[in-house]
Amino acid sequence: MRVIAGEIQKQMADASWIRKMFEKGLELKREVGADNVCDFSLGNPDMPPPPRARGALSELAARVCEPLEMGYCPNAGLPVFREKLAGFLAAQQQAPVRAGHVVVTCGAAGALTSFFRAVLEPGDEVMCPAPYFVEYGAYCGHFGGVLRPVPALPPDFQPDLDAIEAAVTDRTRVILINSPNNPTGCVYARETLKRLAELLERVNASRQRPLFLLSDEPYRFLAYDGAEVPPVLDVSPYALVLGSFSKSLSLAGERVGYIAASPAMPDADLLINAVAMTSRTLGFVNAPVLGQRLAMALLGEGVDVAVYDGRRRAMAEVLRAAGIEFAMPRGAFYFFPKAPGDDDRGFVQKLLAHNILAVPGTGFGYPGHFRLAFCVDKRVIERSAPGFKAAARERL
Amino acid sequence: MRVIAGEIQKQMADASWIRKMFEKGLELKREVGADNVCDFSLGNPDMPPPPRARGALSELAARVCEPLEMGYCPNAGLPVFREKLAGFLAAQQQAPVRAGHVVVTCGAAGALTSFFRAVLEPGDEVMCPAPYFVEYGAYCGHFGGVLRPVPALPPDFQPDLDAIEAAVTDRTRVILINSPNNPTGCVYARETLKRLAELLERVNASRQRPLFLLSDEPYRFLAYDGAEVPPVLDVSPYALVLGSFSKSLSLAGERVGYIAASPAMPDADLLINAVAMTSRTLGFVNAPVLGQRLAMALLGEGVDVAVYDGRRRAMAEVLRAAGIEFAMPRGAFYFFPKAPGDDDRGFVQKLLAHNILAVPGTGFGYPGHFRLAFCVDKRVIERSAPGFKAAARERL
Repeated sequence: MRVIAGEIQKQMADASWIRKMFEKGLELKREVGADNVCDFSLGNPDMPPPPRARGALSELAARVCEPLEMGYCPNAGLPVFREKLAGFLAAQQQAPVRAGHVVVTCGAAGALTSFFRAVLEPGDEVMCPAPYFVEYGAYCGHFGGVLRPVPALPPDFQPDLDAIEAAVTDRTRVILINSPNNPTGCVYARETLKRLAELLERVNASRQRPLFLLSDEPYRFLAYDGAEVPPVLDVSPYALVLGSFSKSLSLAGERVGYIAASPAMPDADLLINAVAMTSRTLGFVNAPVLGQRLAMALLGEGVDVAVYDGRRRAMAEVLRAAGIEFAMPRGAFYFFPKAPGDDDRGFVQKLLAHNILAVPGTGFGYPGHFRLAFCVDKRVIERSAPGFKAAARERL
Repeated sequence: MRVIAGEIQKQMADASWIRKMFEKGLELKREVGADNVCDFSLGNPDMPPPPRARGALSELAARVCEPLEMGYCPNAGLPVFREKLAGFLAAQQQAPVRAGHVVVTCGAAGALTSFFRAVLEPGDEVMCPAPYFVEYGAYCGHFGGVLRPVPALPPDFQPDLDAIEAAVTDRTRVILINSPNNPTGCVYARETLKRLAELLERVNASRQRPLFLLSDEPYRFLAYDGAEVPPVLDVSPYALVLGSFSKSLSLAGERVGYIAASPAMPDADLLINAVAMTSRTLGFVNAPVLGQRLAMALLGEGVDVAVYDGRRRAMAEVLRAAGIEFAMPRGAFYFFPKAPGDDDRGFVQKLLAHNILAVPGTGFGYPGHFRLAFCVDKRVIERSAPGFKAAARERL
């Protein structure tokens, strides 16, 4: 008997590299002890939420037994949170965002699937620079969408704007960017966004169904050396941003995020209502209310960027000492170094032999490199130095 | 410019009747004041969560700033909750359910969409007795599934087993039942489940892809007059149950539910792993961790059924006094009375004129009746008596 659908069976066989490394990691930790493994495979922030989270949740506890306090809320989010979030995004995006431009979602992932469901028709294409977060393909694929990655430019992985323009077809519905970027740590310049906006303008002049610019921004809060993360909503009427509180407040497990449309978008209200509806019919119904209230109480706060910066510098030191080539990340908490011998899967295996977990670039549609997530204690980074050196010295 | 997909545009135009009544209700409440409206349109429980919720959430607040406490959890749920939930379901379903048979989901809705994504291929059919919860159609429709309602038998809305058997085709992939039922309050007998199981056995004897029996059970805890809600997992190897803590613990906004496969299912592990994967790729990622911990702390507790029973009796009294025909609900918190003159939409309009909100049966694929949700204060029910009487007296 075939209990699951054919397409799903195929996807399970192709299980993501992040997951494969996660499972190998579990095995290794059982074997040698968790303290002896340097795990750079997962983007699960180890920093605690801001200290005020404790008081905020205590206050929610005092009210939890009031009638309807824990009941359904509007699909687009608690009205008071939607309002505050709009104000927060208006300042951040330098655009007159109002509550009606925002849907509170179940994390950034829920924002992506709800948006794709609302706008994609079967055969529509979603373009994104590679390397990219591998789940993008599944997110649009549920609804007949097709992901079209366009390789970014080494060494620092800025998007290749000419190649993107050349690859746009009549079916391209969304250009999906992610800055600060997972897995490269690259931050897109204001000029890059402007050129993408100009592309949209040219394309949309002759379109019935617009081409959107969708910016996935869970790492906006995390930029180094004074790097600017420019706003997106003000560059094009067909721009949208989405994000979450998973990384900025270390609330990944509670699943709270958002999507916001440019206030200049014609029919922005129709699109936002559609996303609220698909969010309902996909089964999210509403973002979890405890998480919404917690994120509202902590809105604008963030974990300490200086701690991540210290880790970034330590990781760079480890890689330099091992003679591994890399572009210094300007944002997020990832390195995407070049794999010695251009063999990312082989090198990740070598690292594994030294109790170091990394993810091959193949898992992000970009072989020849590998990803290191440095959202771990600095001591783990420092402890990994001899392993990196030894792995890099071995001939392939 | 057409900003949203054609199919979604159509769905928005067809906005559900529950939502329409909700919006009319808001309007009415603004006009005459919320206290003057008797709102029976929404299944949003007004009973507070059990008193222990307060202490349980306080304990979570004390720990919220520990590293990784709020981080991602495995897609299938917190291992300790999965384990406890399996024990709970084993006792309830009289089957040897283990953690590996269970996925913790974002509410019952998330269980349904993740399951449909895992098993449906385009053109597959999901059969359910009518009237039914209207979102079922959208849930399977996202993935090319087609809902095939089969009218239940008046006056008490037991499923029509002969009609179901006659309607099964090669493409029928799931028989979806909901007991205690929304919107009828009907509870399915053990004999009914047994006959459905026999149907599965006959059909599956010659199948490559099995026919499943999927039981949607958010109201299992709510049965009256000693009515038995028989277990489902033990009747067929291809049975699954799903449920949530939205009604039993009044935690609807926090989105925690589950799905469990019969331990006797061949490849149960494959199916459960597939549901955990689709739950991830649909963007749920994991059920919210605060909700999971809260539901775990309160597992087995429930709101006071006697309160609902008192309301049920009061509502029956109101309907009887108005001369409106109905089957006494044996479970859940809904009445599904006959609309005078068989005109459900007309009668709901009449009720509206008396500041009473109800939902026409048309919204549940079953015209001629209307739904009343009695999860409201008993005084609201009593206050509605003159309105029902007056509306029923008016000739259509």
